[in-house]
Formats: sequence, structure tokens, C-alpha cells
Amino acid sequence: MTEDMERLAAGMEKRLIERRRDLHRCPEAAWTEFRTASKVAAALMAAGYEVRLGEDAVRRESMLGVPTEEELSAHMERAVTQGGDPDLIERMRGGLTGVVGELRCGDGPVTAMRFDMDANDLDEARDQAHRPFREGFASVNPGVMHACGHDGHVVIGLGVAELLAGLKDRLHGTVRLIFQPGEEGVRGAGPMVDAGALDGVDYLFGGHIGFRAPRTGQLVCGVGGFLATTKFDATFSGVAAHAGAAPEQGRNALLAAACAALNLHAIPRHGQGASRISVGVLNAGQGRNVVPPNALIKGETRGQTTAINDFMYGRAREVLAGAARMYGVDLALAEVGRSVSGRSDPELAAVVRRAAGAMDFFDPAGVIDAMDLRGSEDFALMLAEVQHQGGLGTYLMLGSDLAAGHHNARFDFDERCLAPGAALFARCVLGCMELPGRARTAQGV
Amino acid sequence: MTEDMERLAAGMEKRLIERRRDLHRCPEAAWTEFRTASKVAAALMAAGYEVRLGEDAVRRESMLGVPTEEELSAHMERAVTQGGDPDLIERMRGGLTGVVGELRCGDGPVTAMRFDMDANDLDEARDQAHRPFREGFASVNPGVMHACGHDGHVVIGLGVAELLAGLKDRLHGTVRLIFQPGEEGVRGAGPMVDAGALDGVDYLFGGHIGFRAPRTGQLVCGVGGFLATTKFDATFSGVAAHAGAAPEQGRNALLAAACAALNLHAIPRHGQGASRISVGVLNAGQGRNVVPPNALIKGETRGQTTAINDFMYGRAREVLAGAARMYGVDLALAEVGRSVSGRSDPELAAVVRRAAGAMDFFDPAGVIDAMDLRGSEDFALMLAEVQHQGGLGTYLMLGSDLAAGHHNARFDFDERCLAPGAALFARCVLGCMELPGRARTAQGV
Amino acid sequence: MTEDMERLAAGMEKRLIERRRDLHRCPEAAWTEFRTASKVAAALMAAGYEVRLGEDAVRRESMLGVPTEEELSAHMERAVTQGGDPDLIERMRGGLTGVVGELRCGDGPVTAMRFDMDANDLDEARDQAHRPFREGFASVNPGVMHACGHDGHVVIGLGVAELLAGLKDRLHGTVRLIFQPGEEGVRGAGPMVDAGALDGVDYLFGGHIGFRAPRTGQLVCGVGGFLATTKFDATFSGVAAHAGAAPEQGRNALLAAACAALNLHAIPRHGQGASRISVGVLNAGQGRNVVPPNALIKGETRGQTTAINDFMYGRAREVLAGAARMYGVDLALAEVGRSVSGRSDPELAAVVRRAAGAMDFFDPAGVIDAMDLRGSEDFALMLAEVQHQGGLGTYLMLGSDLAAGHHNARFDFDERCLAPGAALFARCVLGCMELPGRARTAQGV
Amino acid sequence: MTEDMERLAAGMEKRLIERRRDLHRCPEAAWTEFRTASKVAAALMAAGYEVRLGEDAVRRESMLGVPTEEELSAHMERAVTQGGDPDLIERMRGGLTGVVGELRCGDGPVTAMRFDMDANDLDEARDQAHRPFREGFASVNPGVMHACGHDGHVVIGLGVAELLAGLKDRLHGTVRLIFQPGEEGVRGAGPMVDAGALDGVDYLFGGHIGFRAPRTGQLVCGVGGFLATTKFDATFSGVAAHAGAAPEQGRNALLAAACAALNLHAIPRHGQGASRISVGVLNAGQGRNVVPPNALIKGETRGQTTAINDFMYGRAREVLAGAARMYGVDLALAEVGRSVSGRSDPELAAVVRRAAGAMDFFDPAGVIDAMDLRGSEDFALMLAEVQHQGGLGTYLMLGSDLAAGHHNARFDFDERCLAPGAALFARCVLGCMELPGRARTAQGV
Repeated sequence: MTEDMERLAAGMEKRLIERRRDLHRCPEAAWTEFRTASKVAAALMAAGYEVRLGEDAVRRESMLGVPTEEELSAHMERAVTQGGDPDLIERMRGGLTGVVGELRCGDGPVTAMRFDMDANDLDEARDQAHRPFREGFASVNPGVMHACGHDGHVVIGLGVAELLAGLKDRLHGTVRLIFQPGEEGVRGAGPMVDAGALDGVDYLFGGHIGFRAPRTGQLVCGVGGFLATTKFDATFSGVAAHAGAAPEQGRNALLAAACAALNLHAIPRHGQGASRISVGVLNAGQGRNVVPPNALIKGETRGQTTAINDFMYGRAREVLAGAARMYGVDLALAEVGRSVSGRSDPELAAVVRRAAGAMDFFDPAGVIDAMDLRGSEDFALMLAEVQHQGGLGTYLMLGSDLAAGHHNARFDFDERCLAPGAALFARCVLGCMELPGRARTAQGV
Repeated sequence: MTEDMERLAAGMEKRLIERRRDLHRCPEAAWTEFRTASKVAAALMAAGYEVRLGEDAVRRESMLGVPTEEELSAHMERAVTQGGDPDLIERMRGGLTGVVGELRCGDGPVTAMRFDMDANDLDEARDQAHRPFREGFASVNPGVMHACGHDGHVVIGLGVAELLAGLKDRLHGTVRLIFQPGEEGVRGAGPMVDAGALDGVDYLFGGHIGFRAPRTGQLVCGVGGFLATTKFDATFSGVAAHAGAAPEQGRNALLAAACAALNLHAIPRHGQGASRISVGVLNAGQGRNVVPPNALIKGETRGQTTAINDFMYGRAREVLAGAARMYGVDLALAEVGRSVSGRSDPELAAVVRRAAGAMDFFDPAGVIDAMDLRGSEDFALMLAEVQHQGGLGTYLMLGSDLAAGHHNARFDFDERCLAPGAALFARCVLGCMELPGRARTAQGV
Repeated sequence: MTEDMERLAAGMEKRLIERRRDLHRCPEAAWTEFRTASKVAAALMAAGYEVRLGEDAVRRESMLGVPTEEELSAHMERAVTQGGDPDLIERMRGGLTGVVGELRCGDGPVTAMRFDMDANDLDEARDQAHRPFREGFASVNPGVMHACGHDGHVVIGLGVAELLAGLKDRLHGTVRLIFQPGEEGVRGAGPMVDAGALDGVDYLFGGHIGFRAPRTGQLVCGVGGFLATTKFDATFSGVAAHAGAAPEQGRNALLAAACAALNLHAIPRHGQGASRISVGVLNAGQGRNVVPPNALIKGETRGQTTAINDFMYGRAREVLAGAARMYGVDLALAEVGRSVSGRSDPELAAVVRRAAGAMDFFDPAGVIDAMDLRGSEDFALMLAEVQHQGGLGTYLMLGSDLAAGHHNARFDFDERCLAPGAALFARCVLGCMELPGRARTAQGV
Repeated sequence: MTEDMERLAAGMEKRLIERRRDLHRCPEAAWTEFRTASKVAAALMAAGYEVRLGEDAVRRESMLGVPTEEELSAHMERAVTQGGDPDLIERMRGGLTGVVGELRCGDGPVTAMRFDMDANDLDEARDQAHRPFREGFASVNPGVMHACGHDGHVVIGLGVAELLAGLKDRLHGTVRLIFQPGEEGVRGAGPMVDAGALDGVDYLFGGHIGFRAPRTGQLVCGVGGFLATTKFDATFSGVAAHAGAAPEQGRNALLAAACAALNLHAIPRHGQGASRISVGVLNAGQGRNVVPPNALIKGETRGQTTAINDFMYGRAREVLAGAARMYGVDLALAEVGRSVSGRSDPELAAVVRRAAGAMDFFDPAGVIDAMDLRGSEDFALMLAEVQHQGGLGTYLMLGSDLAAGHHNARFDFDERCLAPGAALFARCVLGCMELPGRARTAQGV
């Protein structure tokens, strides 16, 4: 059966690359993946999957860092203009751009796979040295670019959908394909978890092109070392006053923010492991001689464990509240992203290794069992949910030659990884079917 | 002779108002007053004044807070498009937009008058309640507006020019009319002083519409309490780094700026009089998870005396340098404006009072000898220069009903003050001719 | 009658000097003036005054900056050892060391005089160049010294008491002599006001030896420009932890205090007049490698007006509370002293001038009507109370050659000012009797 | 041969305990171990060791955190009073209190052992519950206490000296016993290394009573995870001024220190491993209303590696210098202690395990091969030196029931560990003689 898959995958390579380039031309940032998601949903439906959309896929109340209604509406319009399905898009109103497709094949385990869809807030390079521009598929959406490879992830996910649909008669159990919005800013996974997208999952796979596997043919089977993180925006509101004539009448939001920034960085180290704090942006004030009534901080905390990140964000909240108190200004604190720490299960990473071992595409010397991410990925929220239920999960890195680093305006990857990537994920589903029956011992169930 | 002046002034009222509205429609901010200055120069030449332009009027090396070459060129083009004289404008290249007109009438004192020409960085209100919009003379230049009344000052100055030219045969001594760019940000007076515009002046007059004389018919004859001030931009340049993966590789410009902002405000009070410090704007950073490599502070110091402001700015420089040292970042500190403290001479304020006393326009109950500005005006630099040479100076406030406060998008003044304003200044020239011959005892000569 | 007074005063000079030297040998700091006050009370009783002591003179609940019970008891014992009256001292238990003596002479105005009694926390110089040491009357109490001249004030007050008692038959109205503890740290006046010591006063006199009248024979009749002030101690309490092993378990009081200190100094200037903030002392921490659980700040605010000081202290409270909140530590804020702004009444200063004019002792060229203190004195609280009731007050400076500045370990004054000082105050009482009858129009009555 | 040693050690137990109690009664802090070192030197001489003292044992120029000459002299006097040898003590003038004893036994490896001698700055508990007080050997030196067990270390070292001297005929190679001053504050090891005390060493042993082996019979054979550290004192010197009258004349050392403290804690985390910063003490200021001219910070940095600590201390120096620059005050920065990171060699830890395995005293279940210290110990400097030369080293922990934690006023250990401890170290020397001949491959030689 798996020989068929190799053949099938090879046969769809051209189409996968076309699809990837179409998505690359029309990138959409977090919570605005209307066109992308509508195309995903349409493809899943066409392939015979049951599709969950809108509030069935994303819990509205859990969404963080959402654009305004006006912005969302403008993006919906653009998505339609660029060929998205208006009816499907309407069902995603409010930024509910997650999609879940399910293929039921009788009794057996539930195997889920997650693919993230969003692009970055970045202008793409526009010169001949950059292949997407040279070959005509550079972003047409100003300020947005697929600079992390999520366009490839979507395409691989749709490839998996087709491969497995073609093999349906020979499968058992359930395959669930989760297309997630808003991985950037670690925003999308939580609301999909809260909407039940991971309920009942026995095996969970996710992955990323490139990153710590920067050569085509490389593979990391089980990534660990996800850092827990919280992203936040702190807005201070004070009172303007003439800085020369009546400074005492002002309430200085700039100084509150400056004081907060310093003291946030002075939150103590944690004796149990690595912690991080970053105030990446501070914008405040209106005029040279006006006591500044406004200030915005964009920040994030991280922790080697969720407990350490909780410590960091807890202290950060105290610092921000204290700074506002100190200057008599108001504080609006918005949590705009969140993820936890985590680690792939070696048993499932072994499934990936076995699947890769059967494929010529992968360089045996470049296949690694485990590696630490030392970064944040909200896949960790899904992983934690599945592990909490008693299931297993793993996150792989699919090697690909990179033109430049992730989040760089010249990022591009080697499209040769797409079809083998789809085949690898599909083989993993088959591999899970061969695992010994698990007595589900969910901690939380 | 003065009766003629009243009549002459009344006769030119309609023209003054037309001119003011023309200027109001085409406002130009500091160092970009190309159209305005070319029209002033042309009018002075037409009235028989010797005119100094370009480097003869403004010392290039003394200019602070100058836009880039590109910006200046764009403004020159616009000025020509809007009817400025191309040849005159070419002579002002680089932002040398000051103009000095001189009328020589034989032996006698040199009496100078200063009129400022620049507009504010502000979008003008665009609704029917705002007269300039309703009557069709609101600003056509986006982001720029005459919101402080300098359009009126220019028109009064040109009125004075005509009035005195018409009386030339009956005058003695020299009349010098100084049209200054860049009063906003206290930038233009210094470079004109350094170019010699105040050399040899015995009597200096300047003034402002409105402000502390907010009713038509009011008049303050001698303003004091100018605050010395320094405006500065501090740019910190550090090194970006990934805030999660390698924070130690960064050099944090945001924290340097935040630390500077706090400690600038902690500069001690001064035992000898009022001091001020303001960090009005702080912008720093690029992304939430990037160690910020960039930060900009816009600030200003003030002092009741020049010595106090010097103390404040001296300490501010130390704080800024210390903050850069602390964070290992580079500091570029630009002084973008500067003025001194000062006080009008009562003898010359008395000349204003006598001149006003002879005019029906002014309400005797509304004429005040002296008042403190409690703000900054770079006229103080000219005043200090003249007083240093042994001359006298005064700064008056010409009452005018105001539609809204200065620097407000709805600012407008009562145009009825224009012709009497011109007549008042012209009368002051005559008044000076009647002063007892001064034995010039310049401190600096 | 006044000739008698001159003679009487001259006659008591030797005794005044002896008394001053006795007090100088046994100085007592704020709230510990047990020996001094007991001697004052005994002398007033002996001279026929009605005397109020203890809670009749000082309101316990209003006392700020009071030593501990143990310290007070130790000082009481020492006072007895050094010759204080045990019974009187017992009535002052708790630091109630104020004394009020009243001489009732029938109908007429109530004239009050205030004399402060406390010494400074300072070791007196112990070398031959310092007269008190050379002549054997230097302080025998370690760490305490009369370095401000209050020993002289007490002696003058007792001189006044005797002079007026001797003239009792010729007086009318009431004379009230107020001997105040704790002027240092502006602590004693408030509790005496609250105990009613100023009730019903028509005329109030106070004064100081030296200061802005640093030559014998000089006199300032009416001092103004008292700065309002608040003195405070802020104690931060956190949690200690090993700074290497478990820094996250600590709550850092040192950083809370450091942050408070910086931001206290960043409280904005006030547009209506001079303000001051001082964090004079910061002590924090236990060991190099222990997260500091303790920190103490000693600070003060000042204002040209009481409103400005209230603004400063109000903002200071916010900063302190915010810093505690920021670091999750507890804050105990103790107000340890307080005074208001104020200004002498010219009508009463004129009484001083007339009294001085009749005495040969004063140098006519050295007598000045008014001068600003530019410092704080809690006499201002008594002055405000009397003025609020509709009465008048003045604060004089009695010139005296000084060996060194006030609060210096080598401070000493010219004892020749003592007898004339007493005569001057006594003459002022007589002068008040000659003032036209005042229709009391108390604001607060 | 080793049976003899057990017997010998048991025979000396009573004497070891007496010696320990003698040392405990007369504790001496870093660089003042005059009495202790003179007794050590005398004992080593008596046992036939060649002894190096003074500058032959300690490099004066490398000494950090040394008391003043006056303090050292006072301690020398006390040491003599308490029974130290005056001649030996004289040779230690200046705090050169290290002692090296060498026993040459022909060809063979050089085996060194390090024992630290200093006590803590702490008042010992004085109540019946504390055995040293109850049994009469509590500290008689105010403010100093053996609260870390170094008294036991010295006694063990002298026991080793006697045991090996008794076996001299049967030994080969060289035994070198290093008695180090100033381990507290990580001050003594560096100057002994610099004096050559570790030159030529093939095998190095060191150890500590208690700590991570808190039960008698436990043993850790090879400790790792020493944290690199730098201890520093930063003294800021400014200018005092009256905070009310002339704050602008001051230079505020308190604010410089406060600013430094905050920004020291804001030094970024390090991506490569754990880092620490601690400002444990901040003392500043003189009086509430005086601009503070003085401030002292006591701090330390740490790093999981020496490179990380170097990063931390390098940044700390920048912060301190920047804070001084910011406030225009002088900075005197003194490095008062320093150590590096490190890890015991497993081959030598195995020697310890074998030695312990032959002794009934140790509980086999309580013997652990390796453990991380997660603290700092300047033994790491000696270890690094030996490893750099191509030798091996290990640091053991000798289990002992503890009455309270280290550095606690109630600290006491179980003296039953002393004789077995000496036997263990002596056995290790024998164990090294059995190691296969090492081809010395020094990295640095």
C-alpha cells in the first residue's frame, strides 16, 4: 500500500508546487486567512472529508490579538477579490479562519495532524535575486509575506488529505486534519483546542519546514524544548498637559512605560530553568512639549517550563500595574498570544523515523531523533492537550534548503520537500495503525 | 504726520486681509517658507527697500532642525507651483528663508522690527464651523497650518513696510524689517543674529497676535519672562538580537532610552528659579521578540534664566551619554532649537504705550505695560543681542479675538487687528525718532 | 515703663548667659527635652505663670517622628540625673515636652510668643578653638548638640517671662509663652496647635538667632517665604532568598526602594512655584548574595505654597505605593514631620521695628522689614493658625555673630544678643497693647 | 598498610575533636586566620613537612577584599593573645595567611589536597540549645563564627598530615597539603594559585563537610556545577548640597547607585546558560535634606560557565560606569572575590569511591558519584589550574548530621566525621599511587 503512496505523491508534485505558489502570492496574516482557509475547506470537501468551520473550529472567546472588525472586513473583501469562496468566507466572519477536516474509516485510533496557514507581517523582497519575485509569485499583498514556510505547510496538508482519501478503503480509525490560523504570535492553537479540535485524539503530528533542518533531505523526528510564552500589549493612558506651563497637571504615560520597561527586565532569573523577558516595542508621546498621555509596550515572557513562564508573566503583570500606580495612569493589559512548554513523545517520533526510513528522499545521516526548539510554537498547546488526554504527539522538522532565514524578506524554501513531506505524514498515519492498541489512560478524562 | 498713517493704514486694510488669506491658504513650516519669503522679498523690493536674502540673512552653519535636502527641494517645487518667484526661491536653497529689508533715511537711530513667518505641523480643521474653511482659505498644504497667527505677523510687517515707505521723506535714521523663518521650535532667530541681521540696532520691536491678549483692542506693551530653552533629539543605536534565543547578543536601545527618560526627569530642581524638562516623545523597537536596536527621544529643557537652562541641558547631556554608556549603545544628540531668557525694556514699552494711546483702536483699560510670557520665543535671542549692543527692545502682544487656542486645528484670529497693528508698529518707529539721543554704551562693542 | 525694662534686662544678662551655658551642656533632641522643659516649667511657675504641661500642652495623637518608649524612658532617666525635676518630668512621659505659661493681666489682647527648645543630632566639636569646649560648657550628651541656637531661644523666653512678670501691674490682656519641643524635623508645632496652645491668640511672635541675620545688632522684623514641607520614612519589607540558588523566591525591597528613589525625583515640576523632593538616605540589604528583604528611605518634599507641597507629597505617596506594588513588597509610610508655607504680617513686623528702634543695641542700618526664609520652620503652623483665627503674627531674626553655620559642629553664637533679645520681645508685648483695638474677624471662628 | 591507617585514625579521634573545638572557639575571618595558620604551620613542621608561608604561599598582588592594615594588625595581636606563634604570625603580616606543607617521598606523582580555614562574619548563637555554647567552645571572637565547618576541614587536613607522615616510608611521590585562607567571598584560592601552590600537581582533592551530604555516612565523590562568580563593591562619590536651598549644586550618589542597581538587574539573560546578578546591599546618604554624596553597592555576578560570568560582569561594569557618568559622580569599583566554573574529573572521583568502599564508616547507599553544586567555591580555581596542567581533580562532600544550615548562627556538625574524613583523604593519596602512570599532557605546558 505504501508503494502506491510514493507514486501518488510523486504524481501530485507539480500540483502541490502550483498550489504553494498561489498561496505564496496571496499571503494572509493571523486571523485573516480567509482566502487560504476557504480554499482549504473547499479542497477537503472535494476530497470527501467532513469539514468543520467557523465557531465549530475556533472558539471565539479564546481568540487573542484579533484585528478590529474593520480590518477583518477589509481582509474578507480582499479574499473574495483574490478568488476565495464568498459563502465559506462569510462563515469565517470575525476571523474564525480555522478548518478541521475529518475522514472516518471505521473503528480505530484517531490520528490528527496540524498545519498552520498564516503569513508574516513583512514586505517581501522585490528583486531578481529573489526567486518568488523572479518567477512571478511574490506577494501581492503589501506588508504581508509567507516568510516562514506556512504556505508549504498548507500544501503538504492538502497533499496528505488527497493521499489518504485515495487510500480510504485500506484505512481504519479516523484521520483528522487541522488547519490552524495565527501560529505567528502563538494565537491560533488555543482557540482550536478550546473548540474541541483535539478531542479524542490518540496520535498527533505537526511539523515545520526548515528551521533546525536547513537542508533538503534532513529530518528531525521529535522536537522538544518548546518554550512556554505569553505575548502582551500594555497600553498606558494618562493626561496631556503643557510641559512648560503646567507640568503638574499631566499624568505621564511615557514615564510609566519607561519605568515598566526597565523593571520588567529586572524581574529576577528563575533558579529552576531559563526565563526570558522582552519589551520589543515602546511608543509614547505626541509632541516635544506635551506631557505624554499615551504609551504602548509590546512585550513577551518565556519560560523553559510553563511554570517558569507563569512566574515571569505574573511578575510582569505586577510591574505593569505598579508602574501605572506610580504615575497615576490607567493600564489596559491585553494578552495577545500564549503557548506552553512541551516535548514530543519518543514513541511517536519513532513512527516518524520508521516512515522516513522507508523513503529514499531522506538522507539517513540527516535524520535525527530529537532536538530542542528553544523557541515557542503553539503546537505545544495541542500537544499538551493530547498528552493530557493520554495520547501521544510529535513535532517534526522537514529539511529544506533555505534561501534565507525564517522571517527574512528573502526567505524561500526548496519545493522538492513538498511531495515527500506529504508522503511522510501519510505514512505516519499508516504507522500509527500498526501501533499496539493503546489503553487510553487520560490524566484528565 | 501720524494722522496720515491712520488713514493710510485704514486704506490698506482690505489688501492686508487678502494677503493674510493668501498666506493662510499656503502655509509653510520652519525652513520651508520659500513661497512666503519670496513674496515678502518681492513686496519689500517693490516698496523701495534694500533686501538681503539667503546667506546674507541666515547663517547656514547656525541652522538647527533643518529638513533633509530632499524635503527642502520638494518644498521649493511646491512653492513655485503655488506662485512663488523661482529666482528668489533659488537664492533660498537649503532653507535660507529669512529676509531683511532696510529703508535708509539718513542719519539717526536704527530701528528694527521682527516678524515671524512659519506655520505649524498640523492638519487644519475642515468643517463649516471653521471660518478659514467656510470662506475658502483653509490650508491646501497637508499637515501644515497657520495655527499661531504668523500669517498675520507677515501681513502686518508688509503693511509697516508700505506705511513707512510712504513717509520716507519725513523719517530719519534707518528702518530694518526682519522676516524670520522657523520661530516654531525656536530655530530661526539664532541664524539671523549670527548673519548680522541685528548689527547696529538701537531699537528692536517684535510681537505676537493673541496669546495673553485674547481680545481685540487689548495690548501688552512689554513682555518679559521669556524662558530659555533647548530642544533636542537623541537617537540611540544598538544591536538587534533574538530576544528568546540570544538576548546577550543584543544592545538594547529601548532600555537606554527608557533609562534616559526617567533620569532626565530626575535632574534636580534649581534653587535659583524655575526649570523644566520634558521628554515628549519616545519611539523604540521593531518587533515584540527582537532586542530593540533603535530608539528616539524628542525632548526639551527650559529655564527661568539662560543659566538655569544651561544647567538643565548640561545635565541632560550627561544623562543621555550615561544611558548610552550603560547599555553600550551609540548616541547621536542633535540640538534642534534654542533660545534664551529675557525681558523687554520698560523705556521702549513706554514708546508702545504712547503710540497706542494715540489710537482709537485700543481699549485704554486693556493696555498693560508688562506681563510674563512663561514660555519660550526666539525673539529673546534678538532682544539679547540688541541689549548686549547697548540698544533697547520690547515685545508686544496685539489683542485679537481668537476662535480657539494657539496650535489648535480651529485657531483663527480677528483680522480687524491687522491694519491697526501695522499702524502701531509704524508709529513706534516715529516714537523712537523722538527719544532723546542715546549715548550707545554697548557692553559688547 | 520701658526704661525699666532695659535696666531689668541688663541686670539679668549674667544669669541668662549662665542659664544658656547650662542648657548648652545638656542638650536634648526632639521629644526628649525632659530636663529643659522641666526647668522651663519650674521657672515659669516661680515667676507666677499658670503652666500647662503634658497632654494639656501637646496632643499625643498628633506627634510625629517620636522615639520608642525605651528611648524616651532612657532620656527621662538621664534628665533626672542631670538635675531635672522628677515630678514634672513624669508628667511629660511619652515625649510630651511642650510647656505653656500664661500671665493674665485683665482684659485685653492675647499676645503669644513661641520659643523652641530642642537640640540637634550631632556630636559637638571638642577642641580649644571651639569656645563651648574651651570654656567648659560643651555638650556632655553624646550625639546631641545645641547647634542651632535653641538654647538661646529658651533663655530669651525665660528672660521675657521674668521681665513681664516684673511689669505685671502695668500690663493688660494676656501674655502666653509657648516653649515648643521638636522644631528640628518640623515635629513639635502641630501637636501644640492641636492641643489648643494657640487658641484665642491675637498676636503671635517667634524668632530665631542668627541665620539670615549673621551679625550682632542686625534684625529682620518679618520673615516670609516659609516653605511647606513633609518629612517621611518609607520602609519596604520583602522576602529574602538566596540570590544564586533561588532568586525567584525573593521579594526585592532594595529594588523597590531604588525604583522609588528615582521616580520620586521624576515627580514633575510645578507650574505655580518652587517644589522640592529629596531622598536623603537609602539603606537596604543584608548580604551580597541575599535578595534584600529590607529597605528604608528617608525623604522630604517641599513647596513654595502648602498646595505645592501637598501636590509633591501626594505624588510621592503614589510613587512609593507603586514601587511596592511593582516588587510585591510591603510599604510602611510614616509621616515624621510637617509644616506649611507662610508669611509674617507687616503690621506686626512694624511693631518689632518700632520696638527695636527704641533700643541702642540694634544697628539702624541692619534692621530689615522683610526677608524670605526659603526654608521650612514649623512656626508656620502656629502662624497659619493665628492668621486663620483672624490674628496677626510675625517671625523675626535676631542678629548674632556666628562662629560657624547652623547645624555645624562648631556652631556658637554671640551671647550679647540674649538680654536685648529678651527686652525686644517684651517690648513687643507692650507694643501690641498700643495697637488699635482689633475687631477680631477670624475666618475660622 | 591501610589497616594501619584505620587504626591510626581512630586513635587520633579524641585529639581531632579537641583541636576542632579549639579552632571553633577562636574563629578568624578571611585574611585574618593568623592564629589558625600559625597552629597549622607549627603542626606541619612538627610532623616533618616542608612548610611554605607568607609570600611563598600567597601572592600579595592577587589578594582581593583585604581588610585595612589597622584591622589586620589588630587581628595579629589578638591571634598572639589567643596563643598563636608570634614569629610565624609575623611572617604572615598583610594577611598572607596561606600555608603549604609538603612531604617528599621520592619519585612519583604529586598529590595535593586543599583545606580552607576561614570563619564567617556572624555572631554565634549563645543559648543552651546550641552545643558549642552549652559545651563551652562557642566563639569568643565577636562577630565571627565557624558556621560553615572550615574548622573541621583544618582538623581533617592536620589529621591527614599525621597519618601520611606516619606512613612515609611506604609512600612514593609527593604529598602537598594546602591550607587556604578566605574561601568565604572566594578570595583565597586565586592568590595561592598565583603563588605557585598548585604547580606540578597531578592529582588534586578538596571537599566540604555537610552541604549536599547532610547525613553522617553520606559521601559525594565528585562535585560539578561550580558557578563562576565575581564579587564587587562599587563606591559612588558625589557632592553634598542642601536639598532645599541649592539642589543643583549637588551630585547625587544615591540616585547613581539606585539607577545602577535597577539596570544591573536588567542585564539580559544569556542564551547559553544560567546567569545571576545580585545587588545585595545598597547604603547611601547622610541626612534627609542633604543631596547624598556617598553610596555603596555590594554585588555579585554568576554564570553557569566562566564565559557567562565574564559576560555578566563585563556588562555590570558598563552599567556602573554609565550610572556614574549619568549623575556626574566618581566610581571606585573593587573586585573583592572571583572564581570560575568547573567539574570534577570522574577518574579521580572513582578513586574516592574506591577509598570509601573500603571503609565501614560510609553507608554504601549514601555514596554518590556526582552531583552539581549550583553554587560557587574558589576550589574551582585550583581545579582549573590543575586540569589546565593536565592533571586531575575532584571535590567531595563528606556527610555529617547538621544542627542547622550553613552560615546559620546555630550551625554545628557531627564530629564523628572527622577521623574517617582524615582516613578517607589519606586513602585517596594511596589510591593515586596505584593509578596507571599518567603521561602528563598539560594543555598549557
